[in-house]
Amino acid sequence: MIPTITAFERSPDGGKGLARDTRVRWALEEVGQPYEVRFLSSARMKAPEHLAIHPFGQIPTYEEGSLCLFETGSIVFHLAERHAGLLPAEPDARARAISWMFAALNTIEPPVLDLTTARIFEADKPWAQQRLPLVKDRIRAVLDRLSAYLGAADWLDGAFSAGDLLMVSVLLRLRMSGILDEYPNLAAYVARGEARPAYARAFAAQFAVNAPA
Amino acid sequence: MIPTITAFERSPDGGKGLARDTRVRWALEEVGQPYEVRFLSSARMKAPEHLAIHPFGQIPTYEEGSLCLFETGSIVFHLAERHAGLLPAEPDARARAISWMFAALNTIEPPVLDLTTARIFEADKPWAQQRLPLVKDRIRAVLDRLSAYLGAADWLDGAFSAGDLLMVSVLLRLRMSGILDEYPNLAAYVARGEARPAYARAFAAQFAVNAPA
Repeated sequence: MIPTITAFERSPDGGKGLARDTRVRWALEEVGQPYEVRFLSSARMKAPEHLAIHPFGQIPTYEEGSLCLFETGSIVFHLAERHAGLLPAEPDARARAISWMFAALNTIEPPVLDLTTARIFEADKPWAQQRLPLVKDRIRAVLDRLSAYLGAADWLDGAFSAGDLLMVSVLLRLRMSGILDEYPNLAAYVARGEARPAYARAFAAQFAVNAPA
Repeated sequence: MIPTITAFERSPDGGKGLARDTRVRWALEEVGQPYEVRFLSSARMKAPEHLAIHPFGQIPTYEEGSLCLFETGSIVFHLAERHAGLLPAEPDARARAISWMFAALNTIEPPVLDLTTARIFEADKPWAQQRLPLVKDRIRAVLDRLSAYLGAADWLDGAFSAGDLLMVSVLLRLRMSGILDEYPNLAAYVARGEARPAYARAFAAQFAVNAPA
């Protein structure tokens, strides 16, 4: 059975691959699972038919027979559980890889998202410029630790895992800010993720849809 | 084997149960797993011995024989995978419950945490009062959806699950703000969580350590 995911009809990032469907595409490519995409306008995301499968009216979703999933983290985990290649088989290592999935989404992504809020949604506010250094320093506080932990390793814990897939995806959101370049080992880690053939295929697939004409 | 978790020597919330060890204590109580606690001062959280098990120098952690885990979400998931009571057995329902775990931590918690940032860490900034309504409106944007989805149901998807445990825990952070009371069904949902005997035991255990003398 070929699963169907949802994605932006046209991503607001213009093909940079930062919309969350890229994370799911990447996981599908890593495990070699073909998939179909249903594209949604912003209006259709908030329509009852879509809210029935995604309570928050967002993308991506994942449909496979009777199963309807939302939340990128859980879709990536679902794929990782059912296919080889995204989670180690050894129980302790598997549990640690899952820790990194949650770390990417609950420890690193919140301060990273705050930068988007500050730079885009609050760009016109009187405090925008003055507040930005605080937001960036909160990102640096977690990246200092992540960089120290990663050291010279290729991936977070042994072989590439779903934890790396999500962490690289979250860190990619920082590229435009320049913050990533303050951490050469994290910049190299992200580049290592992007160099994976599965990432390249996922990126190309979303780029074909979202790039400016 | 009795697992050991870590917790604040003295929680900054003074016993309100908002520190993340309460979430892990609650999961342990739900599955009937006895546990021990190692208490850490803020200084010891950033010491090399603790950073070796928690790369971000936080609590809680979970140690069980050879296994060392960090990240609340993954600790709760680890317990839910190995014990009955926190995840349904039917595969589709189990995957959906995991979606709700990620939704609590990656969709609801980031805007909720932003309120703590605004009210505590940026309380002395010139923009503090003016910015607060924006932060609250971003919380309302996700709570509007969550409330509409939950409707009159007791729990998010059938029986109580690890998704509810994390969602209730995240929503508890909003009680002081009054925002939760704008959504009677969500306030009742949170109260339903707090009324569970396992939550009461978890709360009491942290309160005994953290309450003002």
